[in-house]
Amino acid sequence: MADQNTPPTAQLAHATLHDQVSSSQVSKAEFSDRVLIRSIVSRPDGGAGLAGQRLRIGGWVKTGRKADKDAFAFLELNDGSCPGNLQVIVEADKADLGQLVPTGTCVSVDGLLKLPPAGTKQKVELRVENVLHVGPVDPARYPLPKTRLTLEFLRDFVHLRPRTNTISAVARIRNALAFATHTFFQKHGFLYVHTPIITTSDCEGAGEMFQVTTLISEAEKLEKELIKNPPPSESDIEAAKLVVKEKGEIVSKLKSDKASKGEIGASVNVLKKAKENLLKLEERSKLKPGIPQKDGTIDYSQDFFARQAFLTVSGQLQVESFACALSSVYTFGPTFRAEHSHTSRHLAEFWMVEPEIAFADLNDDMNCAEAYVKFLCQWLLDNCLEDMKFMADKFDKSCIDRLRMVSSTPFERITYTKAVELLEEAVKKGKVFDNKVEWGIDLSSEHERYLTEVKFQKPVIVYNYPKGIKAFYMRLNDDSKTVAAMDVLVPRVGELIGGSQREERYDVIQSRIEEMGLPVEPYEWYLDLRRFGTVKHSGFGLGFERMLLFATGIDNIRDVIPFPRYPGRADL
Amino acid sequence: MADQNTPPTAQLAHATLHDQVSSSQVSKAEFSDRVLIRSIVSRPDGGAGLAGQRLRIGGWVKTGRKADKDAFAFLELNDGSCPGNLQVIVEADKADLGQLVPTGTCVSVDGLLKLPPAGTKQKVELRVENVLHVGPVDPARYPLPKTRLTLEFLRDFVHLRPRTNTISAVARIRNALAFATHTFFQKHGFLYVHTPIITTSDCEGAGEMFQVTTLISEAEKLEKELIKNPPPSESDIEAAKLVVKEKGEIVSKLKSDKASKGEIGASVNVLKKAKENLLKLEERSKLKPGIPQKDGTIDYSQDFFARQAFLTVSGQLQVESFACALSSVYTFGPTFRAEHSHTSRHLAEFWMVEPEIAFADLNDDMNCAEAYVKFLCQWLLDNCLEDMKFMADKFDKSCIDRLRMVSSTPFERITYTKAVELLEEAVKKGKVFDNKVEWGIDLSSEHERYLTEVKFQKPVIVYNYPKGIKAFYMRLNDDSKTVAAMDVLVPRVGELIGGSQREERYDVIQSRIEEMGLPVEPYEWYLDLRRFGTVKHSGFGLGFERMLLFATGIDNIRDVIPFPRYPGRADL
Repeated sequence: MADQNTPPTAQLAHATLHDQVSSSQVSKAEFSDRVLIRSIVSRPDGGAGLAGQRLRIGGWVKTGRKADKDAFAFLELNDGSCPGNLQVIVEADKADLGQLVPTGTCVSVDGLLKLPPAGTKQKVELRVENVLHVGPVDPARYPLPKTRLTLEFLRDFVHLRPRTNTISAVARIRNALAFATHTFFQKHGFLYVHTPIITTSDCEGAGEMFQVTTLISEAEKLEKELIKNPPPSESDIEAAKLVVKEKGEIVSKLKSDKASKGEIGASVNVLKKAKENLLKLEERSKLKPGIPQKDGTIDYSQDFFARQAFLTVSGQLQVESFACALSSVYTFGPTFRAEHSHTSRHLAEFWMVEPEIAFADLNDDMNCAEAYVKFLCQWLLDNCLEDMKFMADKFDKSCIDRLRMVSSTPFERITYTKAVELLEEAVKKGKVFDNKVEWGIDLSSEHERYLTEVKFQKPVIVYNYPKGIKAFYMRLNDDSKTVAAMDVLVPRVGELIGGSQREERYDVIQSRIEEMGLPVEPYEWYLDLRRFGTVKHSGFGLGFERMLLFATGIDNIRDVIPFPRYPGRADL
Repeated sequence: MADQNTPPTAQLAHATLHDQVSSSQVSKAEFSDRVLIRSIVSRPDGGAGLAGQRLRIGGWVKTGRKADKDAFAFLELNDGSCPGNLQVIVEADKADLGQLVPTGTCVSVDGLLKLPPAGTKQKVELRVENVLHVGPVDPARYPLPKTRLTLEFLRDFVHLRPRTNTISAVARIRNALAFATHTFFQKHGFLYVHTPIITTSDCEGAGEMFQVTTLISEAEKLEKELIKNPPPSESDIEAAKLVVKEKGEIVSKLKSDKASKGEIGASVNVLKKAKENLLKLEERSKLKPGIPQKDGTIDYSQDFFARQAFLTVSGQLQVESFACALSSVYTFGPTFRAEHSHTSRHLAEFWMVEPEIAFADLNDDMNCAEAYVKFLCQWLLDNCLEDMKFMADKFDKSCIDRLRMVSSTPFERITYTKAVELLEEAVKKGKVFDNKVEWGIDLSSEHERYLTEVKFQKPVIVYNYPKGIKAFYMRLNDDSKTVAAMDVLVPRVGELIGGSQREERYDVIQSRIEEMGLPVEPYEWYLDLRRFGTVKHSGFGLGFERMLLFATGIDNIRDVIPFPRYPGRADL
């Protein structure tokens, strides 16, 4: 739907996501026998209009307590479909109430929705008629008691933390942003391309890479095998050689004696077997424990891919090959950096969104980036408002206002040169930065945040950076000093997006590679895209977890990805 | 939108994908200055209704030829937005025609859409008024000439093969299936969870895994460093020890002489520095080239994650932890097997879709799998018919009929025991299988294909498999002989989906782990899901490339993934 006259966004949002629940019907969770708690408590009337309905509910107890001398129990039940809980009331004759009330208990019940007594917080409650299932919890052993736990503490329990209010809200927001990403690019006619995770190319030669190998496990396997079944000794081989010699002599003898064909044939077969045995022994005698070496270094021809392989740091170069054929494409997948960063902004495994557009220049690229970020913000406002309210309440009062501002305000666009001028002006007026400001520097986080948070108080796109601080593939501008790069800066996180128009001129990119001291050979395939049918093209990368930090107001990147990987930790 | 009363599928399909182009407007490619060729040639009238419009087009020449004594050139231009080309006519005064006609040339032009002379194949053609850009090709060097090339040949040019009709059609079909996947699960209230790629868990202990490490590169770095800056000799250390001793004596002397505080302080500082220097030398003297060892094996405490890490073989176990909190979830990402399979059905890196549903039993699981596969087939019929027609024409006459059949026919559901009976009957009637048929065997591909292609001639779900051939986490049935597993078999590929109800009973799963000789410790976190608030749950995995083989009729899995990885090959 690349037709600009019909914006299907709003319509699509309502057709696919589900914060708007207003019919008098509850929603059955499909491929399951229960009703979604969201379809009750997220209604504008809080579920009151559903009173009188009989239905089945399943979920986990957030808080439970016995009341009225243990005559019944109140359970706050959550099934992950929304931040809200459903209040469930179980009478003592229906179940062992003591087993029901611990936080974390799973229950599945049939019951009747009723209006609660006047003056209570909830708009509707479920009177249980039948308890179908209880998955109990021993509170003495459960690692996540009811008390408020720090996000840092929860990182030791990545398998249980989705049961907490914060991590489940983040999971729903993350899901919404992922689907919004696909929806945005599909809507604009982009094709999703799965770029490889295991790669033998190195994007920029910038980040430290993880190596992917089977050499170590193969060496360990061989070592075990050689202990169980030791290689032949020299005398074993000598003996086998002797056998070959003897059998050969027998053949010669039979031949010179003009023995029968049958006799000669049989002896030739015996000789053949002896030779095979010798060959096998000689082969085994060459086996050496340890990682295979050749000329003093590791012999990667024996690794799985017959060469050194790594985890990708970016899908950009590969996705460019699809853009130079299919025009508008994007990739959205995991990327990796083996850097020993222990900061709250770095992960060893993180997700990136990388669109690439043929027949597009830097201006088109900025238009796409701005439209995409706005779309994401509006999507959260349209589809995740309950979760965003939770984040505003618990983590960052301004997070909803920030989404509104970004989705509705045109981004400021300034050149790098202008940005440096503005920073220098600020310094003159007394602003203190830790890092020196002068033309040629890479803007640091404090500079970026000053521009977007203080100077403009809205997203800022800085473009045309000095070539010395940017990658070889960015298009050289006519001034020969800057390249057609751009960064999108947003309040709270600074750089959210980095992109550029790519250098499409064969001669220019080749000399840029040489100028930057990079080897040409690994990029020959990339140069082919310029050698054959080259096209003006542009793209960018958005760090998906950065977008989550921006949206949620969470401080540490380890809390916005389901299974964080960083130096020393890769749980599960 | 888990409300079953409003099926938003069709509506969504049209709101988001774009084979239906019928307005009198052409679609501008957004974030670019050209019009999509699809918006012209994929119209029901082939673009005739647009004659008279002036517009900008960009794309790559499929075939070009000069005509009328080189007075003009005919170019078949494709921009990847659809399988069809636009005929473009350039007169000799507009450009160097010789440079335009080679296959693979990129051109961007302004022109006027005109009705072609009667009797020609195309419904509209573009008369060029201005040539904006030419990205030339030297036909003598271009690896993909116009002649028909085999898919095997194209594998040596993964960076250029998206320009071919087949690989671009596959890319569009793959994109459509990916977005259909997200749309299906979002529509049914599932949350997309990014399970980790780097893992320290092993799902099933089944597949061979790739190791992820920085030990080798760190060892190489250290080796270089030690050559540049050799470790201290023993005499260096002895000398440093002597300095420490001397400086210590000076301190003692000053103290016993009751020297001034200043004097003593200065000498203590000198001593401190001497000690630091000694410590540094001792540390460096311990550095050994090579991969760090401890007690005769590799010391993984020094690896990036402080333990051995691998590439995931499945996200299932991890996504279960989210299902046991958020109810309905799915993961869709790359998975890895380090197996030396050189077949047309195996890759070292491939994509899997894995939903997981709480409060769902095997029957719910089968319902979900059937609905999902039907949805994918219908989506291709609704959104990719042009590409499917290309595949039917070039690769598999029956591929469109197959999609129609699968999307509209209820799947047959039979127990494993019944399946074995049917196979035994077939054998009695003279059917010859390479693999023996008897209760307890793992069905092989020939058995699966017999059931789906010959016996039922439609998709078949086989369920309740012998426990001995299935994984420990599958729920033990009351017969204690079978587990609640299911496989979806489809014509042409056999097994497309494998799934199960998971064992939610703590005692049972623990004894199953022991029974199968697996170590319990690595699964403690997984057992926690049963220890605390356990819930009935089910899920399955669909091999995404298998779905592509099924849909397209392509024979080799290496041709349905953008960058295939297999033993000996990982290009780019």
